[in-house]
Amino acid sequence: MMRAVDIIVKKRDGGMLSAEEIRHMVRGCVAGEIPDYQMTAWLMAIYFRGMSFPETAALTEAMVHSGEVYDLSSIPFLKVDKHSTGGVGDKTSLILAPLVASVGVPVPMVSGRALGHTGGTLDKLEAIPGFNVRLDAKKFCEQVGRIGVAMIGQSESFVPADRKMYALRDVTGTVESIPLIAASIMSKKIAAGVDALVMDVKTGNGAFLPEVEQAKRLAQTLVAIGREVRMPVVALLTDMNQPLGRAAGNAVEVAETIETLRGRGPDDVREVTLALGAEMLVLGEMADSPAAAREKLVQCLNRGKALEMFAQMVAAQGGDPRIIEDQSLLGLAQAREETIAADRNGFVTAFDTRQIGLALMVLGAGRQTVDDKIDHIVGLYIERKLGECVSKGEVLCRILYRDPDKMGRAREMVAGAITIGDSPVTTPRLVKFRIDANDLITVGGGEHG
Amino acid sequence: MMRAVDIIVKKRDGGMLSAEEIRHMVRGCVAGEIPDYQMTAWLMAIYFRGMSFPETAALTEAMVHSGEVYDLSSIPFLKVDKHSTGGVGDKTSLILAPLVASVGVPVPMVSGRALGHTGGTLDKLEAIPGFNVRLDAKKFCEQVGRIGVAMIGQSESFVPADRKMYALRDVTGTVESIPLIAASIMSKKIAAGVDALVMDVKTGNGAFLPEVEQAKRLAQTLVAIGREVRMPVVALLTDMNQPLGRAAGNAVEVAETIETLRGRGPDDVREVTLALGAEMLVLGEMADSPAAAREKLVQCLNRGKALEMFAQMVAAQGGDPRIIEDQSLLGLAQAREETIAADRNGFVTAFDTRQIGLALMVLGAGRQTVDDKIDHIVGLYIERKLGECVSKGEVLCRILYRDPDKMGRAREMVAGAITIGDSPVTTPRLVKFRIDANDLITVGGGEHG
Repeated sequence: MMRAVDIIVKKRDGGMLSAEEIRHMVRGCVAGEIPDYQMTAWLMAIYFRGMSFPETAALTEAMVHSGEVYDLSSIPFLKVDKHSTGGVGDKTSLILAPLVASVGVPVPMVSGRALGHTGGTLDKLEAIPGFNVRLDAKKFCEQVGRIGVAMIGQSESFVPADRKMYALRDVTGTVESIPLIAASIMSKKIAAGVDALVMDVKTGNGAFLPEVEQAKRLAQTLVAIGREVRMPVVALLTDMNQPLGRAAGNAVEVAETIETLRGRGPDDVREVTLALGAEMLVLGEMADSPAAAREKLVQCLNRGKALEMFAQMVAAQGGDPRIIEDQSLLGLAQAREETIAADRNGFVTAFDTRQIGLALMVLGAGRQTVDDKIDHIVGLYIERKLGECVSKGEVLCRILYRDPDKMGRAREMVAGAITIGDSPVTTPRLVKFRIDANDLITVGGGEHG
Repeated sequence: MMRAVDIIVKKRDGGMLSAEEIRHMVRGCVAGEIPDYQMTAWLMAIYFRGMSFPETAALTEAMVHSGEVYDLSSIPFLKVDKHSTGGVGDKTSLILAPLVASVGVPVPMVSGRALGHTGGTLDKLEAIPGFNVRLDAKKFCEQVGRIGVAMIGQSESFVPADRKMYALRDVTGTVESIPLIAASIMSKKIAAGVDALVMDVKTGNGAFLPEVEQAKRLAQTLVAIGREVRMPVVALLTDMNQPLGRAAGNAVEVAETIETLRGRGPDDVREVTLALGAEMLVLGEMADSPAAAREKLVQCLNRGKALEMFAQMVAAQGGDPRIIEDQSLLGLAQAREETIAADRNGFVTAFDTRQIGLALMVLGAGRQTVDDKIDHIVGLYIERKLGECVSKGEVLCRILYRDPDKMGRAREMVAGAITIGDSPVTTPRLVKFRIDANDLITVGGGEHG
């Protein structure tokens, strides 16, 4: 008979757990047969000892099978999803899902909510009046089959092991473990029934894992899990040393999403979207090369097909599609506005991006705890990005707020998060690395996370 | 406000916890304010990161103050206790407590029970018909004051933090942590109201910590905690590469105790007892040097004073003192006996002492889980010890048993645990190291356990 304590000790001593041992822990945890106090000791041992790629894949699969798994096999074509590790101003999911679907690759997207300094796709979608992210499995599959895209949140029965384990990790200092993070992400993507995945692993001072080496390690682990479970995964490491685009918040990001879907929008948003979208098209076998894929994406943007798909999705999920033509329906006029001006001449040389994310949380655009309510209309516009010049008195940032008390704190945080220097800096490369299964060979020696 | 998760993360990242932070965890755990799943994650982080001596002392003190503390200050003289990390055939506590008390040093001894392969003092005492180890604090103090010695178990209200934390450690792979072991031991000794302590840290293949370096580290930590809380502690590292003495079990060890208190008994039992007792007398300021102390101890043995004190203690705690003259009252005649004979000529070159302890557990002399019942009359006699010669067919070991099924398994285990070789081996030194507070200076660099 397997005993939890023996499995804990084995991992504690650096041993390799079998898939059966890992299943025993995950199943037992969800079933309430293994007490939480054994689970957290095991998670802490994993934090210290890491997990090999096969162990991480076994953990992922055990988590997948803890609940409902969506079956999208009746939909022809390869279903491809994209997932981001989260950042500030990162609205690429909102743009990509309809854009890629408009080329013909079905996108079944199960997303998350804002927590801490990072925003959440579901909260942004809910800034659209009426938009419903709570479709059940049947409606979700039906919509993906019919129009090619659906964006929803997790139901209670979706990967319950992840829900339970994350709640325990959150209060026991075991969130920051690469194999645990990777298994959490991948279990939800596999359970959503996708055939292939593009991962946007953010790196830089606004990312969940700021260090590039950590981000790389996570990207490798995600790709490796994909290899083990036979799901192609491509990861791009992209820059999060400043907010992505100009808008950060919820309704303001919906507006920027619509701009980008019109073929306009900030350069960095467009660039990251096209890079990720190209990978999705290649994985979805809708293009032979990233270059060919890119061309198709640009065509769909220019011909209004992407925006049309977005409108269809909004309508299908109960949202008001008139927001596309009339953005006043997003309610931004209810917000008050203040500006932060440059106190000197110079160039924007650094953002403390995490700090800006925390300021957004203070304003009400994000959550400190899972129970916090989101205020969709608050947010900010970055008027000067890295490397851009600014004169004293010119606007660096516009802040949309509702509560003056919160504004006071947020203003200080945002002002302190933007550095102006004498010389221009080179803007960071947007896509820093690309990792797919072929790259794992070269890092094979370090398979132990 | 202090949050448990921050304290877990601090330790996880190798930080030094303040006494306040450690108290927060221990108090919260006992009060049920900090959930067990946070406690076990913290304990696992301590397992990996260790604790400095000041941290370990703070943990010890927090544990002490989780419950009742015995106040023996009304008893004149320094109260000195001895504690062993446990072994096979280790009856020194039974001999030492009355012996040292007979010289005039009060010995208030709070002991433990058998678990796993090691025996327990309380179980051995309970092999004496009528002996009651459950005195309350008042009766305990009164008896130490009146006759100079009492040997009891822990009440429910005695160091509840240790009870709770040990139960969690036992099922989460965090037992084998030097600072946690040291704090557990020291908290109980301090709460028992002793003024000084002699530690018998066993080393060798029958010890809880077989490696001498680990045992040394534990000894240093115990001495260091003593230094921090101003309680003199001397630790002897003693050999546990074979059962101590000839008898191992419960009633059989009482019989060997009486033999030793008569001034006879096996050489190794007598030697370890005198070495530990001499340290106790010096700490109790009843002798100026170990040599002078030793002389006093030998006198008390030879003049029957130690045995008389034992009889007084037995009588005071409800036991039948006639066992001293009539050992048939121990009931050993109810046991059946089988012998294990040598299958060749040669010398005893090795014992797998742990295996012998486990065989005793199988016979019923020990416990696999805390709920197991002890059979006091089963046990064994080692007829040939390390280095002794034996001819084919001669008896190596006699086993006292009750259940033939259990005997079958035990026989195989014991037979496999005794190695006979061609050449004699030198018998291991009984006392390998002596460590007191002065020795900590030389190991100061490695204070982080």
